[in-house]
Amino acid sequence: VLSGCGVYDGTEVHEASAILVHLSRGGAEVQIFAPDIPQMHVVDHTQGQPSENQSRNVLTESARIARGKISSLAQLNAANHDAAIFPGGFGAAKNLSTFAVDGKDCRVNEDVERVLKEFHAAGKPIGLCCIAPVLAAKVLRGVEVTVGHEQEEGGKWPYAGTAEAIKALGATHCVKDVTEAHVDRKNKVVTTPAFMCETKLHHIHDGIGAMVKSVLELARK
Amino acid sequence: VLSGCGVYDGTEVHEASAILVHLSRGGAEVQIFAPDIPQMHVVDHTQGQPSENQSRNVLTESARIARGKISSLAQLNAANHDAAIFPGGFGAAKNLSTFAVDGKDCRVNEDVERVLKEFHAAGKPIGLCCIAPVLAAKVLRGVEVTVGHEQEEGGKWPYAGTAEAIKALGATHCVKDVTEAHVDRKNKVVTTPAFMCETKLHHIHDGIGAMVKSVLELARK
Repeated sequence: VLSGCGVYDGTEVHEASAILVHLSRGGAEVQIFAPDIPQMHVVDHTQGQPSENQSRNVLTESARIARGKISSLAQLNAANHDAAIFPGGFGAAKNLSTFAVDGKDCRVNEDVERVLKEFHAAGKPIGLCCIAPVLAAKVLRGVEVTVGHEQEEGGKWPYAGTAEAIKALGATHCVKDVTEAHVDRKNKVVTTPAFMCETKLHHIHDGIGAMVKSVLELARK
Repeated sequence: VLSGCGVYDGTEVHEASAILVHLSRGGAEVQIFAPDIPQMHVVDHTQGQPSENQSRNVLTESARIARGKISSLAQLNAANHDAAIFPGGFGAAKNLSTFAVDGKDCRVNEDVERVLKEFHAAGKPIGLCCIAPVLAAKVLRGVEVTVGHEQEEGGKWPYAGTAEAIKALGATHCVKDVTEAHVDRKNKVVTTPAFMCETKLHHIHDGIGAMVKSVLELARK
Protein backbone atom coordinates (compact mmCIF):
# COMPACT_ATOMS: atom_id res chain seq x y z
CA VAL A 1 0.00 0.00 0.00
CA LEU A 2 1.66 3.18 -1.25
CA SER A 3 1.15 6.82 -0.25
CA GLY A 4 2.71 8.77 -3.14
CA CYS A 5 6.22 8.90 -4.59
CA GLY A 6 9.00 10.63 -2.65
CA VAL A 7 10.11 10.61 0.97
CA TYR A 8 8.86 14.09 1.98
CA ASP A 9 5.29 13.93 0.65
CA GLY A 10 4.74 10.28 -0.30
CA THR A 11 6.19 6.79 -0.15
CA GLU A 12 9.95 6.50 0.43
CA VAL A 13 10.91 5.04 -2.96
CA HIS A 14 13.84 2.89 -1.76
CA GLU A 15 11.67 1.29 0.93
CA ALA A 16 8.96 0.49 -1.62
CA SER A 17 11.51 -0.86 -4.08
CA ALA A 18 13.23 -3.01 -1.43
CA ILE A 19 9.87 -4.47 -0.39
CA LEU A 20 9.07 -5.35 -4.01
CA VAL A 21 12.53 -6.87 -4.63
CA HIS A 22 12.25 -9.08 -1.55
CA LEU A 23 8.64 -10.08 -2.33
CA SER A 24 9.77 -11.02 -5.86
CA ARG A 25 12.68 -13.06 -4.51
CA GLY A 26 10.33 -14.76 -2.03
CA GLY A 27 8.02 -15.87 -4.86
CA ALA A 28 5.08 -13.66 -3.88
CA GLU A 29 2.51 -12.36 -6.34
CA VAL A 30 2.00 -8.67 -5.71
CA GLN A 31 -0.78 -6.15 -6.27
CA ILE A 32 -0.21 -2.51 -5.46
CA PHE A 33 -2.80 -0.10 -4.05
CA ALA A 34 -2.96 3.53 -2.96
CA PRO A 35 -5.78 5.83 -1.83
CA ASP A 36 -7.31 7.94 -4.61
CA ILE A 37 -7.07 11.21 -2.67
CA PRO A 38 -5.10 14.48 -2.92
CA GLN A 39 -1.69 14.58 -1.24
CA MET A 40 -1.47 16.72 1.91
CA HIS A 41 1.64 18.41 0.47
CA VAL A 42 3.66 18.59 -2.71
CA VAL A 43 7.22 19.02 -1.46
CA ASP A 44 10.07 20.29 -3.65
CA HIS A 45 12.60 17.64 -2.57
CA THR A 46 15.55 19.89 -3.46
CA GLN A 47 14.32 22.38 -0.83
CA GLY A 48 12.36 20.23 1.62
CA GLN A 49 9.52 22.78 1.60
CA PRO A 50 5.88 22.32 0.53
CA SER A 51 4.87 24.42 -2.47
CA GLU A 52 1.66 26.39 -2.03
CA ASN A 53 0.23 26.21 -5.52
CA GLN A 54 0.56 22.54 -6.47
CA SER A 55 -1.74 19.58 -6.02
CA ARG A 56 -0.99 15.94 -6.79
CA ASN A 57 -3.01 12.76 -6.33
CA VAL A 58 -1.68 9.95 -4.10
CA LEU A 59 -2.78 7.14 -6.47
CA THR A 60 -1.41 8.88 -9.58
CA GLU A 61 2.00 9.57 -8.02
CA SER A 62 2.19 6.09 -6.43
CA ALA A 63 1.76 4.70 -9.96
CA ARG A 64 5.33 5.93 -10.68
CA ILE A 65 6.63 3.30 -8.26
CA ALA A 66 4.08 0.72 -9.42
CA ARG A 67 4.96 1.26 -13.12
CA GLY A 68 1.26 1.87 -13.78
CA LYS A 69 0.02 -1.40 -12.28
CA ILE A 70 -1.96 -0.03 -9.35
CA SER A 71 -5.53 0.11 -8.04
CA SER A 72 -7.45 2.35 -5.68
CA LEU A 73 -7.13 1.29 -2.04
CA ALA A 74 -10.95 1.24 -1.88
CA GLN A 75 -10.75 -1.97 -3.97
CA LEU A 76 -8.38 -3.79 -1.61
CA ASN A 77 -10.20 -6.66 0.10
CA ALA A 78 -8.26 -8.80 2.57
CA ALA A 79 -10.10 -11.91 1.36
CA ASN A 80 -8.13 -11.74 -1.90
CA HIS A 81 -4.64 -11.51 -0.37
CA ASP A 82 -2.37 -13.32 2.08
CA ALA A 83 -0.66 -10.27 3.60
CA ALA A 84 -0.43 -6.49 3.41
CA ILE A 85 2.72 -4.35 3.53
CA PHE A 86 3.04 -0.60 4.13
CA PRO A 87 6.34 1.17 3.32
CA GLY A 88 7.17 4.45 5.05
CA GLY A 89 7.99 7.94 3.91
CA PHE A 90 6.11 11.01 5.11
CA GLY A 91 3.20 9.91 2.91
CA ALA A 92 2.28 7.39 5.62
CA ALA A 93 2.14 10.26 8.13
CA LYS A 94 0.56 12.86 5.81
CA ASN A 95 -1.66 10.97 3.34
CA LEU A 96 -2.48 7.65 5.06
CA SER A 97 -2.89 9.39 8.41
CA THR A 98 -2.47 12.82 10.00
CA PHE A 99 0.41 11.67 12.24
CA ALA A 100 2.84 14.27 10.82
CA VAL A 101 0.51 17.04 12.04
CA ASP A 102 -1.42 15.53 14.94
CA GLY A 103 1.02 12.99 16.45
CA LYS A 104 -0.71 10.67 18.95
CA ASP A 105 -4.05 12.37 18.23
CA CYS A 106 -3.85 11.49 14.54
CA ARG A 107 -6.66 10.20 12.36
CA VAL A 108 -6.08 7.32 9.95
CA ASN A 109 -7.49 7.28 6.40
CA GLU A 110 -10.69 5.21 6.54
CA ASP A 111 -9.61 2.70 3.87
CA VAL A 112 -6.24 2.25 5.59
CA GLU A 113 -8.04 1.62 8.90
CA ARG A 114 -10.45 -0.81 7.23
CA VAL A 115 -7.63 -2.71 5.50
CA LEU A 116 -5.56 -3.00 8.68
CA LYS A 117 -8.57 -4.27 10.63
CA GLU A 118 -9.56 -6.73 7.87
CA PHE A 119 -6.13 -8.36 7.64
CA HIS A 120 -5.79 -8.43 11.43
CA ALA A 121 -9.24 -9.96 11.91
CA ALA A 122 -8.47 -12.60 9.25
CA GLY A 123 -5.21 -13.54 11.02
CA LYS A 124 -3.20 -12.42 7.99
CA PRO A 125 0.18 -10.75 8.51
CA ILE A 126 0.83 -7.03 8.14
CA GLY A 127 4.30 -5.63 7.48
CA LEU A 128 5.23 -1.98 8.02
CA CYS A 129 8.46 0.01 8.06
CA CYS A 130 9.91 3.39 8.95
CA ILE A 131 7.07 5.67 10.20
CA ALA A 132 4.26 3.39 8.92
CA PRO A 133 4.14 1.38 12.20
CA VAL A 134 2.21 4.34 13.70
CA LEU A 135 -0.72 3.21 11.54
CA ALA A 136 -0.80 -0.21 13.21
CA ALA A 137 -0.18 1.37 16.64
CA LYS A 138 -3.19 3.65 16.18
CA VAL A 139 -5.62 1.13 14.65
CA LEU A 140 -4.73 -2.21 16.30
CA ARG A 141 -4.98 -2.02 20.07
CA GLY A 142 -1.91 -3.15 22.00
CA VAL A 143 0.33 -4.22 19.12
CA GLU A 144 4.10 -4.45 19.43
CA VAL A 145 6.08 -2.48 16.84
CA THR A 146 9.55 -1.04 16.33
CA VAL A 147 10.61 2.30 14.93
CA GLY A 148 14.24 1.59 15.89
CA HIS A 149 16.06 3.04 18.88
CA GLU A 150 14.62 5.36 21.56
CA GLN A 151 17.58 7.77 21.81
CA GLU A 152 19.02 9.94 19.03
CA GLU A 153 22.58 8.60 19.55
CA GLY A 154 24.40 11.47 17.88
CA GLY A 155 22.17 11.71 14.84
CA LYS A 156 21.96 8.01 13.99
CA TRP A 157 18.27 7.93 15.05
CA PRO A 158 16.98 11.44 14.17
CA TYR A 159 13.32 10.47 14.70
CA ALA A 160 13.90 8.62 18.00
CA GLY A 161 11.07 10.60 19.63
CA THR A 162 8.59 8.58 17.56
CA ALA A 163 8.99 5.69 20.04
CA GLU A 164 7.28 7.84 22.71
CA ALA A 165 4.39 8.56 20.33
CA ILE A 166 4.06 4.82 19.70
CA LYS A 167 3.67 4.28 23.46
CA ALA A 168 1.22 7.20 23.73
CA LEU A 169 -0.91 5.47 21.07
CA GLY A 170 -1.19 2.46 23.41
CA ALA A 171 1.22 0.19 21.57
CA THR A 172 4.39 -1.45 22.90
CA HIS A 173 7.65 -0.19 21.43
CA CYS A 174 10.42 -2.76 20.91
CA VAL A 175 13.96 -1.50 20.27
CA LYS A 176 15.50 -3.01 17.13
CA ASP A 177 18.49 -2.31 14.91
CA VAL A 178 18.04 -1.25 11.29
CA THR A 179 18.91 -4.70 9.89
CA GLU A 180 16.35 -6.42 12.14
CA ALA A 181 12.58 -6.84 12.08
CA HIS A 182 10.33 -7.14 15.13
CA VAL A 183 7.69 -9.85 14.89
CA ASP A 184 4.55 -9.49 17.03
CA ARG A 185 3.50 -13.14 16.66
CA LYS A 186 0.17 -12.72 18.42
CA ASN A 187 -0.99 -9.91 16.13
CA LYS A 188 1.08 -11.02 13.09
CA VAL A 189 2.50 -7.51 12.75
CA VAL A 190 6.10 -7.25 11.46
CA THR A 191 8.04 -3.97 11.57
CA THR A 192 11.56 -2.70 10.77
CA PRO A 193 13.11 0.76 11.30
CA ALA A 194 14.29 1.41 7.67
CA PHE A 195 14.93 5.16 7.15
CA MET A 196 14.19 5.96 10.80
CA CYS A 197 17.92 5.19 10.95
CA GLU A 198 20.56 7.40 9.33
CA THR A 199 22.73 4.67 7.79
CA LYS A 200 23.94 3.05 4.57
CA LEU A 201 21.18 2.13 2.12
CA HIS A 202 22.10 -1.56 1.98
CA HIS A 203 21.45 -1.93 5.73
CA ILE A 204 17.95 -0.52 5.19
CA HIS A 205 17.49 -2.87 2.21
CA ASP A 206 18.52 -5.84 4.38
CA GLY A 207 16.25 -4.85 7.30
CA ILE A 208 13.32 -4.65 4.90
CA GLY A 209 14.37 -8.08 3.63
CA ALA A 210 14.07 -9.42 7.18
CA MET A 211 10.61 -7.86 7.50
CA VAL A 212 9.37 -9.27 4.18
CA LYS A 213 10.78 -12.71 4.97
CA SER A 214 8.89 -12.82 8.29
CA VAL A 215 5.67 -11.60 6.65
CA LEU A 216 5.91 -14.37 4.02
CA GLU A 217 6.64 -17.00 6.70
CA LEU A 218 3.59 -15.91 8.71
CA ALA A 219 1.47 -15.85 5.53
CA ARG A 220 2.42 -19.43 4.69
CA LYS A 221 1.63 -20.89 8.13
CA VAL B 1 22.88 10.63 -13.13
CA LEU B 2 19.09 10.76 -12.91
CA SER B 3 16.49 11.95 -15.42
CA GLY B 4 13.35 12.44 -13.31
CA CYS B 5 11.26 10.09 -11.16
CA GLY B 6 9.06 7.47 -12.82
CA VAL B 7 9.54 5.02 -15.67
CA TYR B 8 7.43 6.79 -18.32
CA ASP B 9 8.81 10.33 -18.05
CA GLY B 10 11.91 10.02 -15.87
CA THR B 11 14.26 7.60 -14.16
CA GLU B 12 12.97 4.07 -13.53
CA VAL B 13 12.87 4.18 -9.73
CA HIS B 14 13.69 0.51 -9.11
CA GLU B 15 16.76 0.71 -11.36
CA ALA B 16 17.99 3.82 -9.53
CA SER B 17 17.32 2.23 -6.15
CA ALA B 18 19.08 -1.02 -7.10
CA ILE B 19 22.12 0.95 -8.31
CA LEU B 20 22.26 2.84 -5.00
CA VAL B 21 21.83 -0.33 -2.90
CA HIS B 22 24.66 -2.09 -4.75
CA LEU B 23 26.93 0.98 -4.61
CA SER B 24 26.26 1.18 -0.86
CA ARG B 25 27.06 -2.51 -0.41
CA GLY B 26 30.24 -2.08 -2.49
CA GLY B 27 31.48 0.70 -0.19
CA ALA B 28 31.18 3.51 -2.74
CA GLU B 29 30.58 7.14 -1.83
CA VAL B 30 27.83 8.49 -4.04
CA GLN B 31 26.81 11.89 -5.33
CA ILE B 32 23.66 12.25 -7.39
CA PHE B 33 23.15 14.65 -10.32
CA ALA B 34 20.42 15.51 -12.80
CA PRO B 35 20.04 18.18 -15.48
CA ASP B 36 18.19 21.32 -14.35
CA ILE B 37 15.82 21.37 -17.34
CA PRO B 38 12.08 20.83 -17.94
CA GLN B 39 10.89 17.26 -18.54
CA MET B 40 9.82 16.47 -22.11
CA HIS B 41 6.62 14.96 -20.72
CA VAL B 42 4.68 14.62 -17.49
CA VAL B 43 3.03 11.21 -17.80
CA ASP B 44 0.09 10.08 -15.67
CA HIS B 45 1.49 6.64 -14.85
CA THR B 46 -1.99 5.21 -14.21
CA GLN B 47 -2.86 5.96 -17.87
CA GLY B 48 0.52 5.94 -19.63
CA GLN B 49 -0.39 9.17 -21.42
CA PRO B 50 1.37 12.58 -21.26
CA SER B 51 -0.77 15.36 -19.80
CA GLU B 52 -0.86 18.54 -21.87
CA ASN B 53 -1.00 21.13 -19.14
CA GLN B 54 1.71 20.08 -16.69
CA SER B 55 5.39 20.89 -16.47
CA ARG B 56 7.94 19.41 -14.09
CA ASN B 57 11.70 19.91 -13.71
CA VAL B 58 14.08 16.96 -14.13
CA LEU B 59 16.33 17.98 -11.21
CA THR B 60 13.40 18.66 -8.85
CA GLU B 61 11.69 15.33 -9.58
CA SER B 62 14.99 13.39 -9.47
CA ALA B 63 15.42 14.76 -5.93
CA ARG B 64 12.57 12.42 -4.88
CA ILE B 65 14.86 9.45 -5.54
CA ALA B 66 17.90 11.29 -4.15
CA ARG B 67 16.06 12.24 -0.91
CA GLY B 68 17.04 15.86 -1.57
CA LYS B 69 20.78 15.23 -1.85
CA ILE B 70 21.30 16.15 -5.51
CA SER B 71 23.15 18.70 -7.65
CA SER B 72 22.74 20.07 -11.14
CA LEU B 73 24.46 17.96 -13.79
CA ALA B 74 26.28 21.12 -14.92
CA GLN B 75 28.35 20.78 -11.72
CA LEU B 76 29.47 17.20 -12.39
CA ASN B 77 33.20 17.12 -13.18
CA ALA B 78 34.79 13.75 -13.92
CA ALA B 79 37.94 14.82 -12.08
CA ASN B 80 36.04 14.55 -8.77
CA HIS B 81 34.68 11.03 -9.28
CA ASP B 82 35.85 7.49 -10.06
CA ALA B 83 32.89 6.37 -12.18
CA ALA B 84 29.51 7.48 -13.52
CA ILE B 85 26.30 5.43 -13.67
CA PHE B 86 23.12 6.13 -15.65
CA PRO B 87 19.90 4.22 -14.81
CA GLY B 88 17.21 3.86 -17.45
CA GLY B 89 13.55 4.74 -17.70
CA PHE B 90 12.12 6.85 -20.50
CA GLY B 91 13.78 9.89 -18.92
CA ALA B 92 17.07 8.75 -20.48
CA ALA B 93 15.36 8.73 -23.88
CA LYS B 94 13.24 11.89 -23.36
CA ASN B 95 15.19 14.19 -21.02
CA LEU B 96 18.84 13.10 -21.35
CA SER B 97 18.45 12.62 -25.10
CA THR B 98 15.77 12.71 -27.80
CA PHE B 99 16.04 8.96 -28.51
CA ALA B 100 12.34 8.31 -27.70
CA VAL B 101 11.37 10.69 -30.51
CA ASP B 102 14.30 10.62 -32.93
CA GLY B 103 15.76 7.11 -32.55
CA LYS B 104 19.19 6.79 -34.20
CA ASP B 105 19.05 10.48 -35.19
CA CYS B 106 18.72 11.56 -31.57
CA ARG B 107 20.51 14.44 -29.90
CA VAL B 108 22.06 14.03 -26.43
CA ASN B 109 21.78 16.70 -23.71
CA GLU B 110 25.02 18.69 -23.83
CA ASP B 111 25.96 18.06 -20.18
CA VAL B 112 25.28 14.34 -20.58
CA GLU B 113 27.51 14.29 -23.68
CA ARG B 114 30.23 16.26 -21.87
CA VAL B 115 30.11 13.96 -18.83
CA LEU B 116 30.27 10.77 -20.93
CA LYS B 117 33.23 12.14 -22.89
CA GLU B 118 35.04 13.33 -19.73
CA PHE B 119 34.80 9.98 -17.95
CA HIS B 120 35.73 8.10 -21.13
CA ALA B 121 38.74 10.33 -21.84
CA ALA B 122 39.90 9.92 -18.23
CA GLY B 123 39.72 6.12 -18.49
CA LYS B 124 37.04 6.03 -15.77
CA PRO B 125 34.22 3.47 -16.03
CA ILE B 126 30.66 4.26 -17.07
CA GLY B 127 27.72 2.03 -16.14
CA LEU B 128 24.35 2.19 -17.88
CA CYS B 129 21.20 0.07 -17.86
CA CYS B 130 17.91 -0.44 -19.66
CA ILE B 131 17.57 2.19 -22.46
CA ALA B 132 20.44 4.38 -21.15
CA PRO B 133 23.09 2.48 -23.21
CA VAL B 134 21.83 4.44 -26.25
CA LEU B 135 23.55 7.48 -24.67
CA ALA B 136 26.94 5.75 -24.76
CA ALA B 137 26.24 4.30 -28.21
CA LYS B 138 25.53 7.79 -29.56
CA VAL B 139 28.38 9.68 -27.84
CA LEU B 140 31.25 7.17 -27.66
CA ARG B 141 32.22 5.87 -31.09
CA GLY B 142 32.30 2.10 -31.47
CA VAL B 143 31.43 1.03 -27.92
CA GLU B 144 30.00 -2.38 -27.07
CA VAL B 145 26.74 -2.35 -25.13
CA THR B 146 23.81 -4.62 -24.35
CA VAL B 147 20.11 -3.88 -24.23
CA GLY B 148 19.34 -7.59 -23.81
CA HIS B 149 18.07 -9.90 -26.52
CA GLU B 150 17.46 -9.03 -30.19
CA GLN B 151 14.15 -10.88 -30.62
CA GLU B 152 10.90 -10.27 -28.71
CA GLU B 153 10.57 -13.94 -27.67
CA GLY B 154 6.86 -13.88 -26.92
CA GLY B 155 6.86 -10.64 -24.97
CA LYS B 156 9.87 -11.29 -22.76
CA TRP B 157 11.89 -8.61 -24.63
CA PRO B 158 9.25 -6.03 -25.66
CA TYR B 159 11.86 -3.43 -26.69
CA ALA B 160 14.07 -5.91 -28.64
CA GLY B 161 14.08 -3.53 -31.64
CA THR B 162 16.38 -1.23 -29.66
CA ALA B 163 19.32 -3.51 -30.52
CA GLU B 164 18.97 -2.48 -34.19
CA ALA B 165 19.03 1.20 -33.19
CA ILE B 166 22.20 0.54 -31.17
CA LYS B 167 23.84 -0.85 -34.32
CA ALA B 168 22.53 2.05 -36.43
CA LEU B 169 24.26 4.41 -33.97
CA GLY B 170 27.57 2.71 -34.84
CA ALA B 171 27.92 0.68 -31.64
CA THR B 172 28.26 -3.07 -31.27
CA HIS B 173 25.30 -4.84 -29.64
CA CYS B 174 26.10 -7.81 -27.38
CA VAL B 175 23.26 -10.16 -26.41
CA LYS B 176 23.01 -10.64 -22.63
CA ASP B 177 20.48 -12.05 -20.20
CA VAL B 178 18.81 -9.83 -17.60
CA THR B 179 20.97 -11.09 -14.72
CA GLU B 180 24.21 -10.41 -16.65
CA ALA B 181 26.25 -7.31 -17.44
CA HIS B 182 28.32 -6.75 -20.57
CA VAL B 183 31.77 -5.27 -19.93
CA ASP B 184 33.46 -3.38 -22.79
CA ARG B 185 36.93 -3.51 -21.22
CA LYS B 186 38.56 -1.27 -23.81
CA ASN B 187 36.07 1.56 -23.30
CA LYS B 188 35.27 0.71 -19.65
CA VAL B 189 31.55 0.78 -20.44
CA VAL B 190 29.36 -1.67 -18.46
CA THR B 191 25.72 -2.30 -19.39
CA THR B 192 22.83 -4.56 -18.28
CA PRO B 193 19.32 -4.98 -19.76
CA ALA B 194 17.27 -4.28 -16.57
CA PHE B 195 13.65 -3.40 -17.49
CA MET B 196 14.28 -4.01 -21.20
CA CYS B 197 13.28 -7.50 -20.01
CA GLU B 198 9.77 -8.38 -18.81
CA THR B 199 10.70 -10.46 -15.77
CA LYS B 200 10.68 -10.67 -11.97
CA LEU B 201 12.07 -7.61 -10.19
CA HIS B 202 14.76 -9.52 -8.30
CA HIS B 203 16.36 -10.65 -11.59
CA ILE B 204 16.60 -6.98 -12.63
CA HIS B 205 18.01 -6.12 -9.19
CA ASP B 206 20.65 -8.84 -9.57
CA GLY B 207 21.61 -7.81 -13.13
CA ILE B 208 22.12 -4.25 -11.91
CA GLY B 209 24.24 -5.73 -9.10
CA ALA B 210 26.47 -7.38 -11.71
CA MET B 211 26.78 -4.05 -13.57
CA VAL B 212 27.65 -2.07 -10.42
CA LYS B 213 30.16 -4.71 -9.31
CA SER B 214 32.00 -4.53 -12.65
CA VAL B 215 31.96 -0.71 -12.59
CA LEU B 216 33.51 -0.71 -9.09
CA GLU B 217 36.13 -3.28 -10.13
CA LEU B 218 37.13 -1.17 -13.15
CA ALA B 219 37.19 1.98 -10.98
CA ARG B 220 39.60 0.37 -8.51
CA LYS B 221 42.12 -0.84 -11.11
